[in-house]
Amino acid sequence: MIAKMLDVVQFNSAGLIPAIAQQYDTGEVLMMAWMNAEAISETLRTGQVCYYSRSRTALWRKGETSGHTQRLIEMRIDCDGDTLLILVDQTGPACHTGAHNCFFRTIHADGNIDQT
Amino acid sequence: MIAKMLDVVQFNSAGLIPAIAQQYDTGEVLMMAWMNAEAISETLRTGQVCYYSRSRTALWRKGETSGHTQRLIEMRIDCDGDTLLILVDQTGPACHTGAHNCFFRTIHADGNIDQT
Repeated sequence: MIAKMLDVVQFNSAGLIPAIAQQYDTGEVLMMAWMNAEAISETLRTGQVCYYSRSRTALWRKGETSGHTQRLIEMRIDCDGDTLLILVDQTGPACHTGAHNCFFRTIHADGNIDQT
Repeated sequence: MIAKMLDVVQFNSAGLIPAIAQQYDTGEVLMMAWMNAEAISETLRTGQVCYYSRSRTALWRKGETSGHTQRLIEMRIDCDGDTLLILVDQTGPACHTGAHNCFFRTIHADGNIDQT
């Protein structure tokens, strides 16, 4: 599995690729995080989304502590092979703040940023 | 404008932040590219999406050559301040391959990758 993926997946110099998580049925963009080859393999094998935590430098099994897991529906890769889009079924909020998704702040044209 | 944004926006060591482009009315995730502070400012000022091309090391005014522009509807930033979600109105295909979005390849559970 790894060999076939590695023909296509372009990791950055740290061995990581960004993964955009989108709720499969509503289209809501939930979050963006990073995966390494092991996280991709585990996600495909188990059907539960696993990222790589850059701060903890370790695999990050989404929801392992919070219970807010992501079930993998489909994994896609872009034209350049350097970004993943993962369609998921999110349990509970995706964001550690408790928000349903991480993108709850708007940057307005004047540069002001709010929480809505 | 820059000063207010810079309080929140976390650029990487190359001065860049990933920006996920989503069609505002259908929810389709179109592409992911990168912005620097100047690209963010220009996008907010003009209402037309401008990225930073890592390969050309220059501002990349989306659609300047192809005509496949992206009109900015709303710019959002995530909880950590290190990823942008831009809601856009895409003219024509978003992908340089001619596909409407860049995520037209599926990675299957067995690691095989197809074009659908």
